[in-house]
Amino acid sequence: MTDVTLDPRLENDCFTLGTLNGLCLLLMNNKKVPWFILVPPTDKTELYELDAPLQEAIRQAVCTLSRLTKESLGAEKLNVAAIGNVVSQLHIHVVGRFAADYCWPAPVWGATGAEPYTDAEAQDLIVTLKAGLGDAFLSVL
Amino acid sequence: MTDVTLDPRLENDCFTLGTLNGLCLLLMNNKKVPWFILVPPTDKTELYELDAPLQEAIRQAVCTLSRLTKESLGAEKLNVAAIGNVVSQLHIHVVGRFAADYCWPAPVWGATGAEPYTDAEAQDLIVTLKAGLGDAFLSVL
Repeated sequence: MTDVTLDPRLENDCFTLGTLNGLCLLLMNNKKVPWFILVPPTDKTELYELDAPLQEAIRQAVCTLSRLTKESLGAEKLNVAAIGNVVSQLHIHVVGRFAADYCWPAPVWGATGAEPYTDAEAQDLIVTLKAGLGDAFLSVL
Repeated sequence: MTDVTLDPRLENDCFTLGTLNGLCLLLMNNKKVPWFILVPPTDKTELYELDAPLQEAIRQAVCTLSRLTKESLGAEKLNVAAIGNVVSQLHIHVVGRFAADYCWPAPVWGATGAEPYTDAEAQDLIVTLKAGLGDAFLSVL
């Protein structure tokens, strides 16, 4: 669906949901927080190196995911980040946080205590995403 | 210079350098890594809530700082993030990372081992910034 070949660590840790604005959309398999990852089709490793249309596609996708995570999934705070110290393939995290979540107020990166979704929980969330993300989202599930 | 009144924790932890694209530009007082913080003039706490011109000003400022941090300061990787779990005032981190830095590959947020700049080190960096950031940077130092 995109020109993205995922780093095996992203592929192993996440569900591949589909594409959003042409970016690969992943869901981290950690039911403790709603945690999305966008992977743009590029070999560059830094946001500033991308051309303007791809930067704009990322901005729009981050906004779409952010709105859904706060307004449909009820997150109290958003954490948006491009880090890539371990997995160099460029990827952008959009994480919904709650003042009572498993590692609040620490960042989720490097925190212990993740817990995988059950199949039913993952399916429920995917139904919500399909309804909330609109036409820019193309599901593979 | 801007309509930004800084959260006291940001003010205590950082040097206020001036403005970049109308955003308050701070330097974290931690010589272990080049760590910039942009504070936009807004009461909103999430990037997606900002109007398009302010999002664009942030995008441009992040790109300018990113380029300088990699190309002039020699960083090997950039970490760009809006987190705000502790300080809710919207602020965006641009951090230059090195594979041998004090907490690599962990994120800097929550890491221990920061070390303040000496006056001479801070002045040297500010000279580099003034030369590298161009006309969009208005210094207060």
